[in-house]
Order: sequence, then C-alpha cells, then structure tokens
Amino acid sequence: MRIGIDAMGGDRAPVEEVQGVLAARAVLAPDDKIILVGRESAIRPQLAGVSGWQDFIEIRRAEQVIGMDETPVEALRAKPDSSIAVLTKMHRDGEIDAGVSAGNTGAYVAAAQMHLRRLRGVHRPGIAVSTSTFHGPVTICDVGANISCRPQHLHQYGVMASVYHRMICGVDRPRVGLLSVGEEDTKGNELVKRTRDLLRDDPNVNFIGNIEGRDLVRGVCDVVVCDGFVGNVTLKLIEGLGQSMLTAMVDDLRFSLPEHLIAVKQAASRIAARYDFNEYGGAPLLGVGGICIICHGATNSVGFKNALRVAKDVVNRRVNETITDILSQQ
Amino acid sequence: MRIGIDAMGGDRAPVEEVQGVLAARAVLAPDDKIILVGRESAIRPQLAGVSGWQDFIEIRRAEQVIGMDETPVEALRAKPDSSIAVLTKMHRDGEIDAGVSAGNTGAYVAAAQMHLRRLRGVHRPGIAVSTSTFHGPVTICDVGANISCRPQHLHQYGVMASVYHRMICGVDRPRVGLLSVGEEDTKGNELVKRTRDLLRDDPNVNFIGNIEGRDLVRGVCDVVVCDGFVGNVTLKLIEGLGQSMLTAMVDDLRFSLPEHLIAVKQAASRIAARYDFNEYGGAPLLGVGGICIICHGATNSVGFKNALRVAKDVVNRRVNETITDILSQQ
Repeated sequence: MRIGIDAMGGDRAPVEEVQGVLAARAVLAPDDKIILVGRESAIRPQLAGVSGWQDFIEIRRAEQVIGMDETPVEALRAKPDSSIAVLTKMHRDGEIDAGVSAGNTGAYVAAAQMHLRRLRGVHRPGIAVSTSTFHGPVTICDVGANISCRPQHLHQYGVMASVYHRMICGVDRPRVGLLSVGEEDTKGNELVKRTRDLLRDDPNVNFIGNIEGRDLVRGVCDVVVCDGFVGNVTLKLIEGLGQSMLTAMVDDLRFSLPEHLIAVKQAASRIAARYDFNEYGGAPLLGVGGICIICHGATNSVGFKNALRVAKDVVNRRVNETITDILSQQ
Repeated sequence: MRIGIDAMGGDRAPVEEVQGVLAARAVLAPDDKIILVGRESAIRPQLAGVSGWQDFIEIRRAEQVIGMDETPVEALRAKPDSSIAVLTKMHRDGEIDAGVSAGNTGAYVAAAQMHLRRLRGVHRPGIAVSTSTFHGPVTICDVGANISCRPQHLHQYGVMASVYHRMICGVDRPRVGLLSVGEEDTKGNELVKRTRDLLRDDPNVNFIGNIEGRDLVRGVCDVVVCDGFVGNVTLKLIEGLGQSMLTAMVDDLRFSLPEHLIAVKQAASRIAARYDFNEYGGAPLLGVGGICIICHGATNSVGFKNALRVAKDVVNRRVNETITDILSQQ
C-alpha cells in the first residue's frame, strides 16, 4: 500500500509529520510505502541521520504551500505545485491509495472533490470525526465539509458514518442520533424534520431519533449526524471547553493542594488524552473517490502516526466499497 | 413592582420556586410583590409556618400545568387555565411588570408572542442566556426561541443582547461575535455571511467579526450571536460537557489522591458554580412587549431568587425601552 502525506500542512510542519511517519514504521507492512509531499529542502534535514528511511519513505517534491487562511479554491488555482494539490493529483493518478493532510481543510476538501470526484451515489462528501468520550468513541459527521446541507446529505452522512464507525471503531450496528434542539419528534428545524424520516426509514441505519447537545458526551449514541456548520461549532467548542475546564481545575487545586500539583496535572493529562484529537489521528472525508484523511492543524507525531494507521484501516477494511454497495442499492 | 412566577414550572415545582421567592425577600423593595401562579393546594403547604409571607407574596390560582414534553401551541390551546397561560395573561393585562417561568420553554415563548406581542420594530424575539466563563460573563442569543433565522433576526439579536449585556452585566460597549466556522470573512453559511454586513454597519453594535466554537469560552467577546438551533445545541453541550469533564477529574483523583477527595470535590463544585445557570438565574426573552424570564427546568431556589433579581433589574434599568429606542431609529 502507498500512502501520501502532506509534509507541509501542520502547525509545526514538517517536523511532526516526519516524526509521525518514522513512528508509523511499526504498523506498516513490509511493502507499504509512505510518500512525503512537500519542500525537499524542509523535509530532508528531518531525515538526516535516520538509518534506513529509504526502505519505506519516498519524497515527492511540491514547492508551494497553501496557508491556513487562504481561500481554498483560489489557492488551489494559484498554487498548482502546492503540497495539497500534488498529493491529490497523485491520488487521482493511482500513485497512492490514501492521502493525509493537516493543512488547510477547505483546500484539501476542494482538491479531493475536484480530482477524486464522488463515490457513486454520493450527493456530498462529509468529514467524520471520531472522538473519545467517557462512554466510548463517538463519530460526528459532518464537521465542516458541507455547511449548506439538504436532508439527503444528512441521510447519507448517517449511512456513511455508520459504515465507518462499524468498520473502524468496531461497533456493530452503531446507534445513530440526529442532533437537534429536543428529543421529541416535533423538535427541530426543517432540515432536521425532513432528515428524520429518511434516517428512520433506512434499514442500513440504526436510528435512535433526535439527540440534544448534552447527549454528545453521554454515551446515548455512537454516530451523530448534523450539518457541517453545527458540527464544526460543536467540535471546536468541545476542544475549547474541555481544555478550559481542565485548566480551571488544575489552577484551583494549585492553591488548595499545592503539594499534589504533579498528581493533579497528571490526572488532567489523562482526561485530556481521552478527548484528544491525536488519539484518533485524523478524520476521513467520506464520500469521495479516494481515502482522504484530514488532520487537525495542531496534530503531533503521535497523531500523524495514528492518521496513517486510520488510512491503512480504511483501505484494508474496504470502507469505500461498502459505502458504494449500500448507496447504490438506494 | 409586581413580578409573577410560574410556581408549577421547574422539575421540583413548587418547592424550589417558593423557596426562591422567600429567599428573594432580601432584594425586594418594600412595595414589591411576588405573585405565585399555580395550584393553590400545592403552593400553600410550602408557605405553612412562614411568618409574614402575605406581606410580599400573593397566590393566583391556575389549576392546569403544561408538561415539559407537550407541544407548545396545542398545549396553550388545550390548557387556558395553565400556570403559563395565566401568568402571561396577567402580564398582558398589566397586573404584573415581569414574569418568570422554569416550565416548558416553547410554551412560555409562544404565550408571550401571543399575548404580549413584540416590541416595536422587532422581527423575532430571542432568548439571551448569560453564562459565566473564566473570562467573565458571556451572553448568547438566541438559544432556542427562533430556529429558522433570517439575517435581520440575527442582526437584532446583536442589538438587543448588547443592550441587555451592557445594562445587566455592566459591560460598556460589549464586543459582539458572530458564531461561525472560521474567523475569516469568507467563512460561514449564507445566513452568517449576510448577517455580518448588517452587524458591521450598525453603530449600535461593537462587532468584532466571526468567532469559532472554541472562542465561546476564551473571553474573545461578550455577546455571541447565533440562530436558535446552533445556540441551543451549544448551550446544552456546554452544560453536558462541563459536568462530564469535572466528574472525570474527580473520579480520576479519587484513585490517585484518595485522601484529598473532599478538597477535589470542593474544587469541582467551585468550577461548576462558575458555569452554573443558577448563577444568572434566568434568561430574558428579548423583543417581546414585556419582561419574560425563562429558567432552566432544573433551577433551584438560588436560581429562582436570582431570576427575580434579573427581572427587577430588566424592569428598573429600562432594557425594553432602550431596545425600542434603538430599533425604532433603524
């Protein structure tokens, strides 16, 4: 298997990317190859002194970089030699089986739609983020690929995220909840009300009905379906609030239990790790004709290693083929 | 001043309501009266043995109760003698200056729109919830009154919530952020993009631009504008996740610092109190022709006491008159 990784994407690129690839060697098969895409002058120094990297790493030059704040489509047009553009074109040409990027999410999503097209039967791709909670993993789809959703889009997010959650998180018949403002059938905006019937009538979806914001972290369901606007706000709030609560707890106990500060900080780290995006390492863009794994800009080497593992799993377990099988019957 | 309170609304009604009213006596002026609206047979036993309650409390009979799961408009039609309906009709008839309810939010919002109409110039009322964060109070509007928003609605939420935050939280020229999926001007759905111009061009709004989910708890702004669907999901997620993080921290330290469990629990309580909805005690439905304070179903006596204080403040500081002045110039 060949997996490409955008070496210029993350906040500390290419340092964490290269470290992640080196750490991933343990989970690779003998004939697996990782292709680092980006500025050779930036990548090579990170490999200096690493013996045997050539056995499983290749470098593909891409001299341009798309910044986090650039407008996706314009940036892709202006920078055909950017790491994201080159990575996606390699994917299109069959040079790699999967791609990983922590760069500009909008640009990677746009490039994937441009070069890889959609899987047969898919209306709109959606990003599915799996996050740990105290009740097990929860997969939220979509978290930002599609902020103007129609009911058919949300319905397919339920189908695709169920397949992903079952095959990658190992949960049989994952329970699917539709994010709304109340549990009752009558609660919700037009989009939610029209989506509910589609999800309820689909035998491929184990639909449990509406859920509320608080249910996201209560183990009520395994898959959360929402439009990309709500999903993005939600995901970033979880990140911000989680950090803020733990910081507050450490700061408070700094005064009341100063002699135990280390133990308190360790506890906070353990809890943070359970909500850490690096744990799952990357979120697939479900519905495109390829395996595109999107990483948080702050992903560290552990996160990139896990993202490469997720990419391998999605390929090996034939997630895309399963999605196509189900959607082509509908 | 006369303030009515739905005695049958909260999860433990009328116990917490009556206790809250009794506790509020300290903040009342000599000629203030609180009117408890609900089943006399349920309310009277709560006042048994309380000396002098007749000096500042009246009871208004309303024999029906609207349940939390009832459909608002239908329930109001079927139960004209419900505490929410009676409370709102007293408000309409000028018998009270403000109302407070922890009952079915949708029913109270519908009753208010039906009987109190809107303030001149207001398109849609919105619920403004103020919550503490580690960087001071933040007011989010709307959190569920209006889940199908237009740009003009969001614009007015920015205006009305600014007035409220300034007059009640005491922050001069509160910074207003528009909740979106990225800070850049190009980020957001159609609703957000069209709202941004309206907020930016309004001299009555100190608009700082788009904010993201994580910024809600980072002290980036004082007022957050969003549609009622996103606001409701957000508010409930803050509630659920906050509790879940603190519980996790206590559970973890239960093992690593068992001898300090009490200190740890105390720290968690202090932090929870900062995010506690009882702290602000109630959220005004801004834009209706009256002062309607909406409380969480789980509000305790402290929360009801604070809600009565908020109601008094909104009346005394002439929040509605200020909103009307500003909006009638537009």
